[in-house]
Amino acid sequence: MSVVQITRIVRFNCAHRVWNPALSEADNARLFGKCNNPNWHGHNYTLEVTVDGPVDPTTGYVVNLRDVKAVVAREIVDVVDHKNLNLDVPFMAGTIPSTENFVLAIWRVLAPAVAPARLARLKLWETENQYVEYDGR
Amino acid sequence: MSVVQITRIVRFNCAHRVWNPALSEADNARLFGKCNNPNWHGHNYTLEVTVDGPVDPTTGYVVNLRDVKAVVAREIVDVVDHKNLNLDVPFMAGTIPSTENFVLAIWRVLAPAVAPARLARLKLWETENQYVEYDGR
Amino acid sequence: MSVVQITRIVRFNCAHRVWNPALSEADNARLFGKCNNPNWHGHNYTLEVTVDGPVDPTTGYVVNLRDVKAVVAREIVDVVDHKNLNLDVPFMAGTIPSTENFVLAIWRVLAPAVAPARLARLKLWETENQYVEYDGR
Amino acid sequence: MSVVQITRIVRFNCAHRVWNPALSEADNARLFGKCNNPNWHGHNYTLEVTVDGPVDPTTGYVVNLRDVKAVVAREIVDVVDHKNLNLDVPFMAGTIPSTENFVLAIWRVLAPAVAPARLARLKLWETENQYVEYDGR
Amino acid sequence: MSVVQITRIVRFNCAHRVWNPALSEADNARLFGKCNNPNWHGHNYTLEVTVDGPVDPTTGYVVNLRDVKAVVAREIVDVVDHKNLNLDVPFMAGTIPSTENFVLAIWRVLAPAVAPARLARLKLWETENQYVEYDGR
Amino acid sequence: MSVVQITRIVRFNCAHRVWNPALSEADNARLFGKCNNPNWHGHNYTLEVTVDGPVDPTTGYVVNLRDVKAVVAREIVDVVDHKNLNLDVPFMAGTIPSTENFVLAIWRVLAPAVAPARLARLKLWETENQYVEYDGR
Repeated sequence: MSVVQITRIVRFNCAHRVWNPALSEADNARLFGKCNNPNWHGHNYTLEVTVDGPVDPTTGYVVNLRDVKAVVAREIVDVVDHKNLNLDVPFMAGTIPSTENFVLAIWRVLAPAVAPARLARLKLWETENQYVEYDGR
Repeated sequence: MSVVQITRIVRFNCAHRVWNPALSEADNARLFGKCNNPNWHGHNYTLEVTVDGPVDPTTGYVVNLRDVKAVVAREIVDVVDHKNLNLDVPFMAGTIPSTENFVLAIWRVLAPAVAPARLARLKLWETENQYVEYDGR
Repeated sequence: MSVVQITRIVRFNCAHRVWNPALSEADNARLFGKCNNPNWHGHNYTLEVTVDGPVDPTTGYVVNLRDVKAVVAREIVDVVDHKNLNLDVPFMAGTIPSTENFVLAIWRVLAPAVAPARLARLKLWETENQYVEYDGR
Repeated sequence: MSVVQITRIVRFNCAHRVWNPALSEADNARLFGKCNNPNWHGHNYTLEVTVDGPVDPTTGYVVNLRDVKAVVAREIVDVVDHKNLNLDVPFMAGTIPSTENFVLAIWRVLAPAVAPARLARLKLWETENQYVEYDGR
Repeated sequence: MSVVQITRIVRFNCAHRVWNPALSEADNARLFGKCNNPNWHGHNYTLEVTVDGPVDPTTGYVVNLRDVKAVVAREIVDVVDHKNLNLDVPFMAGTIPSTENFVLAIWRVLAPAVAPARLARLKLWETENQYVEYDGR
Repeated sequence: MSVVQITRIVRFNCAHRVWNPALSEADNARLFGKCNNPNWHGHNYTLEVTVDGPVDPTTGYVVNLRDVKAVVAREIVDVVDHKNLNLDVPFMAGTIPSTENFVLAIWRVLAPAVAPARLARLKLWETENQYVEYDGR
């Protein structure tokens, strides 16, 4: 049975500071440069959420994307939009808010939440020139 | 021998109604919401057609993209552009015109038509925030 | 006092047929070509709504864009999204649904509705390669 | 003599809080909603800087854009990128960091700095769906 | 009578060298930097052609854009696409091929050619971060 | 250990001629059409460079992208930007400058240069409607 991937794109705006509290200020500055500004900076993030599966002949859908959109809105967008990734977001607590760690944390939240749809890939843009991807492996 | 993927992007504008005639109007409305409007709605679709193969040392090309473009124009764009996917497109007859079914139908048309080039992937955007992908599996 | 323009962008998907019922089928076909398909076609429209004025020193805003967004959602997006411009939209009744007439009709709805904000310009994209603009003159 | 406008686009990432310290917390929350988060949020800003003038027959240029780019980098990008608009940017001190106030402050810095080029227009995107424009009037 | 602007976007790819043959090589190198490479470089240009006028009540159109597209294709795209602006394009002969001079030359060709439509504005992108505009003044 | 992909996008502008000197002028013209113009044409290329690996718990990074950016700037952008791919670029010498051969040549330069990061994928856009991809296989 043919497997199709379907992707929904959402956007949110956050502040963050790339910072490892276990390191000295000097090491933080050396490693993270301007991303380590103690007064924070921020981004317009764009997240592409991909689920896949066979096409249901009754609906023509892999999944009713309305349901996926509701899950992503409730579990991710409402939690991170106009928030500080270091201070305000429970699922990022204790994590250096690099784009890599952010995408892994989103995966851990969404993979069970979109079931029975199967989460196939996340693509997270931090700027228009930089993005990360993760597919669960 | 190195395998390179090459992609051509085309665009077309269609009307459609996501609708399963085997279901009641109430079930159609519940399942498909505003996409089920009996007076139709429409989209600017963007289609990314990817073929792959080794590079021909005489041309530096996987395939002369001019040939792929001609096939895609004749088999897809000329057939669907400014058309109604439910009423006007022979290769969609009897199919619920979801994006998933649309990409599968395009695959069935293009895979043999682009030979000897090998169709590797289709990516079909329905809006700037939603797309499907299919790679023949 | 400095006058700043502020713009909000919204998107909606519609079916339409460019068709003048006062003309013969032959004249319609000759004038409007594939846009005259009697089975409809459709577009993802993008609308840029610009208001202008001096900046309020209490808020730093020309206008609270939240209010403009609510008006545009209620008066335009909810009325046209996933609709047929020829059949479903009261403010387009009796109008050939060209992009030019569509932008003029949106102006007539929005200019009074956004008051006391001053509507300064509308830019309406029908495809990614075509748009119209109107500034009330 | 023909007057041509030429525009250079730059990008920077900032944290901010839309907040009027003269108002109560309740009034701030009511007016600014989620933009008032005391822990900050942030954006990828895109700035379009337009200068205009007649074309110099020796160079074919209105102005050597290399010079404009150097001024914009030194006076704006280096000052605001990866910074907090409320805390770190001298030319925003004492200003509510709305997009409107931000574009006016950039104008006050750039208009004299790009001379003898004439600053004609600024367009500042806060998100991909929202921008402000100012032309000095 | 309301005046609406309508814009069509076209794209073409050219080589060029920004070079004033009346100057020394040293002056050319100093003024134009890497744009002066004697072996050429090139760009994907994007041109936005805007015409304006009242809306014809018979068609709902300012002008049948099909006619404008045919003129732009014949007079500009067919003449410059995959060409060298210094060597191959008659309407650029004797001109330093800066973006400013290029847009002025396109205006001189298109303004009479689109009549009776009125050419209102040209916007010419040389890269995604740089563009020029001209409106005939 | 989870493997994340991270991508950086860079841009450069080049002239080229798709031309096989081992073939006759007639065969070149027949195979390559307008891309064979002996006076050259050019493009704004966009290159997406993807590296992957596990996330370093000390930094939250797969790799410090600052290092990848420096390598891509030095080995690719500085070598090809505002250059002629047939005449000026040592790593393209003796190669037909098709997009396919260009991406393979960039891979041969970057794969060892980004070590110890692992080069995972290159995506090279020649126009906004055409791109190639290569992943080392």
